[in-house]
Amino acid sequence: MFVETGQDRRLEHVPTHPDWVAEIRGRVRAHVDETVRLRCAEHVHSMRGADFVAGVLSDFVGRGKYLRSMFGYLGWRAAAPDSPAALAAVSGLELLHAFALLQDDVMDRSQLRRGRPTVHVQLASWHRGQGMSGCPDRFGESGAVLLGDLCLVWAEQAMRESGLPRAVLDRGWPRYDEMRSELAVGQFADLLNEARRVPTLDEVMDVLRRKSGNYTVRRPLELGAAMAGAAPELLAALGDYGTMVGEAFQMRDDVLGVFGTDATGKSAGDDLAERKATSLVVLAREVAGPATRGALDALLHGSDEADGPVDVAAARVAIESTGARRRIEELIATRVQSALRLVDGAVADGVLGDDVAAVLRAMAVRCADRVS
Amino acid sequence: MFVETGQDRRLEHVPTHPDWVAEIRGRVRAHVDETVRLRCAEHVHSMRGADFVAGVLSDFVGRGKYLRSMFGYLGWRAAAPDSPAALAAVSGLELLHAFALLQDDVMDRSQLRRGRPTVHVQLASWHRGQGMSGCPDRFGESGAVLLGDLCLVWAEQAMRESGLPRAVLDRGWPRYDEMRSELAVGQFADLLNEARRVPTLDEVMDVLRRKSGNYTVRRPLELGAAMAGAAPELLAALGDYGTMVGEAFQMRDDVLGVFGTDATGKSAGDDLAERKATSLVVLAREVAGPATRGALDALLHGSDEADGPVDVAAARVAIESTGARRRIEELIATRVQSALRLVDGAVADGVLGDDVAAVLRAMAVRCADRVS
Repeated sequence: MFVETGQDRRLEHVPTHPDWVAEIRGRVRAHVDETVRLRCAEHVHSMRGADFVAGVLSDFVGRGKYLRSMFGYLGWRAAAPDSPAALAAVSGLELLHAFALLQDDVMDRSQLRRGRPTVHVQLASWHRGQGMSGCPDRFGESGAVLLGDLCLVWAEQAMRESGLPRAVLDRGWPRYDEMRSELAVGQFADLLNEARRVPTLDEVMDVLRRKSGNYTVRRPLELGAAMAGAAPELLAALGDYGTMVGEAFQMRDDVLGVFGTDATGKSAGDDLAERKATSLVVLAREVAGPATRGALDALLHGSDEADGPVDVAAARVAIESTGARRRIEELIATRVQSALRLVDGAVADGVLGDDVAAVLRAMAVRCADRVS
Repeated sequence: MFVETGQDRRLEHVPTHPDWVAEIRGRVRAHVDETVRLRCAEHVHSMRGADFVAGVLSDFVGRGKYLRSMFGYLGWRAAAPDSPAALAAVSGLELLHAFALLQDDVMDRSQLRRGRPTVHVQLASWHRGQGMSGCPDRFGESGAVLLGDLCLVWAEQAMRESGLPRAVLDRGWPRYDEMRSELAVGQFADLLNEARRVPTLDEVMDVLRRKSGNYTVRRPLELGAAMAGAAPELLAALGDYGTMVGEAFQMRDDVLGVFGTDATGKSAGDDLAERKATSLVVLAREVAGPATRGALDALLHGSDEADGPVDVAAARVAIESTGARRRIEELIATRVQSALRLVDGAVADGVLGDDVAAVLRAMAVRCADRVS
């Protein structure tokens, strides 16, 4: 599960180039919008509802925050000057992300995403409104999976057709391929964690890194930097920074998944309602005394025979009582501090410029401290 | 829906190089097996059930008939000499096909494929046997979708990493990309056809071409030929041949989907049970008199309020009574004749060699006349 928030009020407290962040995002957004428009015009036609389907997909992709493309571009800029072709290549990461969200939301049966009904819910509503035969929910889920497939294909095309020279792309493909497979396998492992009663925190953190953390920050950064021909020391620093910020990002997700509000663009308490074994929930269970642990297990798992809806409010209270939320906040803060130190070190070692460093610092805080 | 049969007893009546066909298939199979083994070792590990999941996927891919890769290689061989790299590139088409089948079977809720329970059914059984919490069927469906995603990614990697020179691959990518998007959009259109009460035969044939016919024969042939640098006349002849054989292939699928037996490796009567508007069903409705049409509609659609299971036996009798099966057989035979004439013409024009022509003739009959 991924949570995406709106404004980040903490950003202003960090020295950065806000205009530059906004500019990168604007350029990525324009490129992604155009890609989706062109691909839909090329392929999504000659069937009932083609315009509606293309509209749903464009709107969905267009409401992203473009974090992954921005990290990809920052990775590039850490080692090379501005390049529209590089920006085009990493903009495909937004489509890769759209693929993951579209299918993830089907698997989780999520209802809200980016402040709107999820795509499979929108497709189901349309099907219902058209008065067609067959099951609307089933149509919505299948349709969203297929739109995800298209985004996965188009993401790869965006990179291959970016205009970057072959030698540059060839430095990126191994990392790109690794990221794609890791994403799917990570989601698979996540399904298993949901299905198990009691994963350990280590297992949860492993899934968290593989499924979300890595591909949100670390892999995009490394992809951009590798294509730009970054030195091994720079690649290593960016990779470590990416691990720290990615874990912080996902743990923030997990906190918002329990204590978040509608401002996340998702349903509040979704993780609890879905009985997901997130870092926060598993940590709460591990640090709880026997009584609270028993209460949590009863709230979140009930019995196999009678799985009623989860009492979200009661589960929140139980989790809060363990102190796990504070512990997770400490873990997040630790990771942000490590990330900032890594940036400082790279600057001190002369492998990273001040301008990119400033944006990386701001992005670390932005990812870890999304205000709900 | 795709139907895949076992032995083809008609092949021996056609002049061909059976040893060559068997040799190509053996080489493709070995390459695909090795690819799946390597990719699973690389990515599918460090999670519960990893060996089981890898085994299910390997077994599933390994039970294919490798039609698409064989057509891809024949397209190559129509214009260029034998090349292990070309064979490696087109072997990825088998993984693309695995992607389509894995997700298609989830969307259709199919139970049998290639003579075994479908992958999502196998995953669900495993989940149930492990006694994990959560819904086994849901796990099975999500898991199969994710394995499909991996196959889609690995298919593209097989082509890119085949060892073919860049210039050769660049002649293939536009066709490859077109095929992938067409496949997903075709499946989407198929969902809409299932959901509509009465599509026209033209609409059904359009979906049939886009979803299955094109990507089974025409696109693989064109892909191989284009990479080999085939002349426009040869490309055109192969494309037309591919359209004819692809349509015949899919119409045979539709006949087997209604009248097939267990020898297809799928459940008999599946298309009827799923109320699919296949070419055979829609043609039957179009040529039926008012009484039979009414009976067919009642059998296949019932009322929105009470959709009980379809009476497959009664629907078969009603379809047979319209004469639609005979008409479809005529349409299939017409297409095979056209395909054979196209091959003869290409040989006469000197754009196609005798050896590849003989195999193409045999493959036309094999695809159109799969013995159930």
